[in-house]
Amino acid sequence: MTGADAVPGALRTIGLAPDGWSVEILDQTALPHARVVRRIASVEAMAEAIAVMRVRGAPLIGASAAYGLCLALREDATDAGLERAMAQLRATRPTAVNLDAALARIAAVVRPLEPDARAACAYAEAATLCTEDSSRNHAIGVHGYAVLRALEGGERPVRVLTHCNAGWLATVAWGTALAPVYVAHADGFPVEVWVSETRPRTQGVLTAWELAQAGVPHTVVADNAAGHLLQRGLVDVCLVGTDRTTGTGDVGNKIGTYLKALAAREHGVPFYACVPSPSIDWALRRGSDIPIEERDAEEVRVVRGVTEAGDGDAVRLLPRETRVANPAFDVTPGRLVTGLITERGVCAATADGLAELFPERRGT
Amino acid sequence: MTGADAVPGALRTIGLAPDGWSVEILDQTALPHARVVRRIASVEAMAEAIAVMRVRGAPLIGASAAYGLCLALREDATDAGLERAMAQLRATRPTAVNLDAALARIAAVVRPLEPDARAACAYAEAATLCTEDSSRNHAIGVHGYAVLRALEGGERPVRVLTHCNAGWLATVAWGTALAPVYVAHADGFPVEVWVSETRPRTQGVLTAWELAQAGVPHTVVADNAAGHLLQRGLVDVCLVGTDRTTGTGDVGNKIGTYLKALAAREHGVPFYACVPSPSIDWALRRGSDIPIEERDAEEVRVVRGVTEAGDGDAVRLLPRETRVANPAFDVTPGRLVTGLITERGVCAATADGLAELFPERRGT
Repeated sequence: MTGADAVPGALRTIGLAPDGWSVEILDQTALPHARVVRRIASVEAMAEAIAVMRVRGAPLIGASAAYGLCLALREDATDAGLERAMAQLRATRPTAVNLDAALARIAAVVRPLEPDARAACAYAEAATLCTEDSSRNHAIGVHGYAVLRALEGGERPVRVLTHCNAGWLATVAWGTALAPVYVAHADGFPVEVWVSETRPRTQGVLTAWELAQAGVPHTVVADNAAGHLLQRGLVDVCLVGTDRTTGTGDVGNKIGTYLKALAAREHGVPFYACVPSPSIDWALRRGSDIPIEERDAEEVRVVRGVTEAGDGDAVRLLPRETRVANPAFDVTPGRLVTGLITERGVCAATADGLAELFPERRGT
Repeated sequence: MTGADAVPGALRTIGLAPDGWSVEILDQTALPHARVVRRIASVEAMAEAIAVMRVRGAPLIGASAAYGLCLALREDATDAGLERAMAQLRATRPTAVNLDAALARIAAVVRPLEPDARAACAYAEAATLCTEDSSRNHAIGVHGYAVLRALEGGERPVRVLTHCNAGWLATVAWGTALAPVYVAHADGFPVEVWVSETRPRTQGVLTAWELAQAGVPHTVVADNAAGHLLQRGLVDVCLVGTDRTTGTGDVGNKIGTYLKALAAREHGVPFYACVPSPSIDWALRRGSDIPIEERDAEEVRVVRGVTEAGDGDAVRLLPRETRVANPAFDVTPGRLVTGLITERGVCAATADGLAELFPERRGT
């Protein structure tokens, strides 16, 4: 199942337009109420799409940034143009390390080349990056499915609690935290998902939509309900994604992840982060060094959705003068994480655990 | 500071109308965008107001139920009428024990009387209940202020994290969890409040409005942010209310309270529940026996607020067919609670702790 296979109408999160150079994205700010494919034809438009979360999810931010750089190089393939575009894209969102990694990857390919060869090679590298994202996430799905199978407790479905959206919408295809769910479901293994609403941006709505498209049973809850569900024995395993995991196994992910990890530990429920290797920041040794994006206060003050008439609209919960803090991510220390599910298998959320799976990174 | 003193315009949560028998409530479903005082003239109207949360908060639910019974007795003061009205009011909301306690209190006064004396005595008892609520909450404020003073760490304000609304809007006056804040603020003691949004019904909006009226500095955050705030050392103490606390010190409160308690313990931050004695269910010995209200799924699927035009409106986050679970409360075990702040002082959240303050209840 790729993004294109997952839903009717061959929706995909990102890809080239028929013109062969501009980029089409599924505008996630319109979901689930409308399916808007938006054509992105400049690095400025791509930077805006990332910043306002038309595309979102660490792996997809990486792919989007890669294509953003391609668009920039079509306009100006000089070294100065490259640096300017990288800075512009890097400034959009600070937490997902995939963004830096994707930019560095494209830059490493094009820097040795003459300017007039750069754009074409950048597009080729971006396409490879996307293909690899899909394969990597599928591998996470296979390894995660083994985790779910090991939990099987009899007749009833395995009950997964997830947070935010780490499904195919957050990636090029398959998703990270939802990849094991999709692989299990495709194999006929019974699985159900508790979907956390994920205020303030309510990405749980996206997760519910994805799961509904795929026919996976699911139930949405307010973020506040996670402790109660775990206390009452209604969750078998927590699966979350990550925006940046340190080389020591501390997991930066959507705000609210940490509360779930604490409650999972309290009730002996395993808590796994699904971590494709481009989401690992090998140089970071402490979770507290993960940069935490502070987003616009209006995201908390105003809720967007559709009216009963079906129009996109917003309601204001709080006056503009109310002071708001809106940290978009938090850090779950590795000691609360049962394991990291990577494309190479499952490991302990420690430097040693990661080094066993990624020996070439040992000491980086 | 009573409800009437706390805000301009002499707003109060509940009281008799000028006619001397019907009841005026501040309709909290319209706050903070409009101040709607609604006249309630029948037990049916009062039951509706409680069920849809025009009045809310355990102490105020108790006062509202008491007046609801008064209204019923004006119509039918027979034993059968009394029982019918009690059943009708009891069916509105299951978790707040104050509701049962208030009904039992009014019933105990009127049952020995002839039917034609019952309504007048019920009104007198309801008024006494309201006066006592105010005094009791003020006493909680005084005891809680001592807790805040003991935390004082130098130049900066003491930073309180609260959840839901346990301010004067949740009571006849003063509030429970916010009473210490109001007493401190009135004494010139610097205090700031982190306000948790409290999805799905966003009672944090009410808390922010109350605090703004009183001039107490505050910052609203999504419920998901509590773990991050505690991890980063930005919270000095957690203060919450309760809808039903067992005689053994387990605290039933708004869904999401438990997650905050777990995170507070993880970071060594004291966590207090402000518990007026009518919110104690002495007969219950285990938190898991506290009835947890499951509310309408549409509360999660739809968010109410105002549009930019200022009209009350709603936006739909999730289609009607999306399965939702909406438990309205959770239970924080006493072992996670640093202390219970009651009208008689602060005690351990244990049966022995409560028995020291309420010796007359020992063994009940």
